[in-house]
Amino acid sequence: MPPQKPLSLALIGIGGVGQAFLTQLALLQSRLKSKLDIRLVLIRRSTTQILDSSWRGLDIATAIKQLQDKSSSEGKGKLLGFEETCVHLATAPGHVVLVDCTSDPQVAGAYPGVLNKGISIVTPNKKAFSSSFSDWQDIFGTAANGPNAGEKEKGNGFIFHESTVGAGLPVLSTLTELIETGDEVTRIEGVFSGTMSFLFNSFNPVAGGGGSFSAEVGKAKELGYTEPDPRDDLNGLDVARKLTILARLTGLEIESPTSFPVQSLIPKELESCSSASEFMDRLPEFDSRMDDLKASATASGKVIRFVGSIDVATKKVKVGLEEFETSHPIAALKGSDNIINFYTKRYGANPLIIQGAGAGAEVTAMGVTGDLLRVVRLLR
Amino acid sequence: MPPQKPLSLALIGIGGVGQAFLTQLALLQSRLKSKLDIRLVLIRRSTTQILDSSWRGLDIATAIKQLQDKSSSEGKGKLLGFEETCVHLATAPGHVVLVDCTSDPQVAGAYPGVLNKGISIVTPNKKAFSSSFSDWQDIFGTAANGPNAGEKEKGNGFIFHESTVGAGLPVLSTLTELIETGDEVTRIEGVFSGTMSFLFNSFNPVAGGGGSFSAEVGKAKELGYTEPDPRDDLNGLDVARKLTILARLTGLEIESPTSFPVQSLIPKELESCSSASEFMDRLPEFDSRMDDLKASATASGKVIRFVGSIDVATKKVKVGLEEFETSHPIAALKGSDNIINFYTKRYGANPLIIQGAGAGAEVTAMGVTGDLLRVVRLLR
Repeated sequence: MPPQKPLSLALIGIGGVGQAFLTQLALLQSRLKSKLDIRLVLIRRSTTQILDSSWRGLDIATAIKQLQDKSSSEGKGKLLGFEETCVHLATAPGHVVLVDCTSDPQVAGAYPGVLNKGISIVTPNKKAFSSSFSDWQDIFGTAANGPNAGEKEKGNGFIFHESTVGAGLPVLSTLTELIETGDEVTRIEGVFSGTMSFLFNSFNPVAGGGGSFSAEVGKAKELGYTEPDPRDDLNGLDVARKLTILARLTGLEIESPTSFPVQSLIPKELESCSSASEFMDRLPEFDSRMDDLKASATASGKVIRFVGSIDVATKKVKVGLEEFETSHPIAALKGSDNIINFYTKRYGANPLIIQGAGAGAEVTAMGVTGDLLRVVRLLR
Repeated sequence: MPPQKPLSLALIGIGGVGQAFLTQLALLQSRLKSKLDIRLVLIRRSTTQILDSSWRGLDIATAIKQLQDKSSSEGKGKLLGFEETCVHLATAPGHVVLVDCTSDPQVAGAYPGVLNKGISIVTPNKKAFSSSFSDWQDIFGTAANGPNAGEKEKGNGFIFHESTVGAGLPVLSTLTELIETGDEVTRIEGVFSGTMSFLFNSFNPVAGGGGSFSAEVGKAKELGYTEPDPRDDLNGLDVARKLTILARLTGLEIESPTSFPVQSLIPKELESCSSASEFMDRLPEFDSRMDDLKASATASGKVIRFVGSIDVATKKVKVGLEEFETSHPIAALKGSDNIINFYTKRYGANPLIIQGAGAGAEVTAMGVTGDLLRVVRLLR
C-alpha cells in the first residue's frame, strides 16, 4: 500500500451546503483512505471556530455539535481574525484547501491573499467571481490555475468554483473544456435560477393555464424556493452574477453584474416597500402586467421565460424575460430545473445542453466535493 | 518561466477523428508551450508508420503528407509490430500517451500491456471497454485510474475514454463525478446513437408526419449519418456497446454487449441479405411494421424512439424501441442529437440531462483532447 499523503481541509460556513459537504467529505475520506489522508482541521462560522492545532483532524460530528451548542464554550477557541487563521492554516501538513461555504463577500475578498499562501480554494460563493473585474483579475492572477492565469510563483493555490453556476451541474467544467480544446463558444443561453424556473414553468406552462404571478411567487416562497425575501430573487441580480461569471470565462471583460441590462421583476411602484411582507401584500396589484405578457406570448404560440444570455461575438450580455416557442428546450423545462445551452462552432446549430436541478444543498455540495477532487488530482 | 516538461504523444489512426485531433493538438501545443512541450513522436496507420526515433517531435503536416502519399516511401519506416513499437515508445522522453483513434479490437486488446509499460491511453475506441468483462477488468486492473482500480504498481499509465459514449459530450466525466462524490445513480436512459436519433426524429416527429422508415434510412445513408452499411447501425450493437460501458461504470458486471436484450431493427427476413444494397432494396417491404408501431404510439399521444436504459438496482440493461410522451425530453430531441438522462438519489425526480451532438469527427476529437488534458493534469 502506498504511503498516505496528508491533505488539510478548512471549512467556513456550516449552513445547509456546508453540512451536506461534510456528509460527502466523510464518504470521500473513507473511499480515498488508502491513498490520501484528508483531515478537517478547521470549522469556522461567523461567531466562532474550532481549529485543531495538532493538525490531527477533528472528529466532524463532535466539532459540529460543539459549534452549534451556543451555551458551551468547550473546544471553542477565541475567534481569531480570518487573516491570522489563514497564516496559521498555511502551516498545516500537506496541501491545504479552504472550503468557503459562506456567501460572505469579505471572505471572498480575501481569496488572493489565501491563494498566495499556497492554500487552494473550492467554493460555491459567487461573490468573489461576480464583483468587480479587478477582483476577478486579482484572483486568477494569483491562482495556479484559471482562464487568465499567467505564469505564477510556484506554490500558489488552485481555485475551483463549479457550484457558482448551476450548483453541481457540470457547467463551468464543460465551458472550460470547450475552450481548452479549442472550440469557439458563440452564445450561451439558459435559465440559471431555480426560483425563476419554477415561477415561469408554473405561471406560464407549455400546456396552458397557470396561476397569477403573485400567487406563484407566494407558492414558491412557501415551498422554500425563494430567498427569505423574494425580492432578492426577483431583482435578477442572482442570475446576473452567474452570467458575469460565465461571460468572464469566455474572455469578456465584464465590469460588474450591473454593467449590462438586467430586468427586475419588482414593479417600480414597489421598489420602495420597506418589508418583504408589504411587498408580497401589494404584488397582486401588478398581476395584470404579467398577464398581458403571457397573453401576448400565447398569441404567437410562445411562452415567457426568465433567461440570461451571452452573445460572445457582440459582447452582449443580458438578463430578463424572453419568449420561446413551446418546442424549445427552454420552454419545456420542468419544476425548478436549470438549463444551459452552449452554442459553439463545433456543435453547430444544435447546442450542447446541460439540464437539471441547479439549487439545493446536496447538489451544490456535490459541485464543491467535485472541485475538491479536482484539486486532489492536481497535487504534486 | 518554469522549465518545459516533455510529453511524448503517439497517434494511431488518421481517419476523420485522428485528423481532427491533430488540428486540436496543434492549438494545444501552442497554448501550453510555456508549460509543457508536447511532441508527436509517432503516427501509425494500418499499413505504415512514421516514428521519430530522435524524439524531437514530428512536423505534423509533413508527416501526414508522407503517410498519405502512397507512392513515396520517404520517411516511412518498416511497419514494426505494435508491441515492438510500444516497447520503443516507452523510452521516449517524459510521460508517453498513446492516442488510439482506430476502432481496431486488436489495438484495444493490447491496452493492458501498453498501460503496464507506463504509457497512458486516450481513445474513442469502444472495443476495449465493451468486449468481455475480463478485458475490462484487465484494463482497469492495470491502469493507474478507473472505477475498479485497486492499488497499482507505481508508474502504470492512466486511461480515459470520454468519447466512447456521446463523443465530446461530458457523459463519462459526469457519471464518474456523480459516483465519486457519493451520489447514487439509480437509472440511466437516453438516445445514444446519432443515426437512431435522426431516424426516429424524422420518421416519427412530435409534430406528426414523417416519411416511411425505409425512406428515412435511405436519407440518413445519403447524408452520411449511417455507417457505409446501415445494418451496422440498425442492429443496435453500437448502442449496446455504449450501454455496456455506462453500466460497467455504475458497477454492474456486464459480461458483454450481447448479454442483455438488444432489439435489432433489421427484419428477420432480411438477416440473410448478402449485401447492403440488397438490404436497402428490400427494406421497404417491411415499412408497414414500423408504421404500425408509429400508429399505435400516436393513438396514445406518444412517439417511438430507439433508446438504451440501465436500471441500476435491478441490474437490467436494455436497448430497443420505446414510447415516450411528446413532452418528454427524449421525444423532443432534434436532428441527430444524443440525450443522456441520469436519474440519481440527489437529483430526485428530474434527471441531470446532457444533450447535443454525439457523433462527428470534431466533437469526438474534442473528447480525446479533453482526455489528454486530464492526463496532463495527473502528471507528476
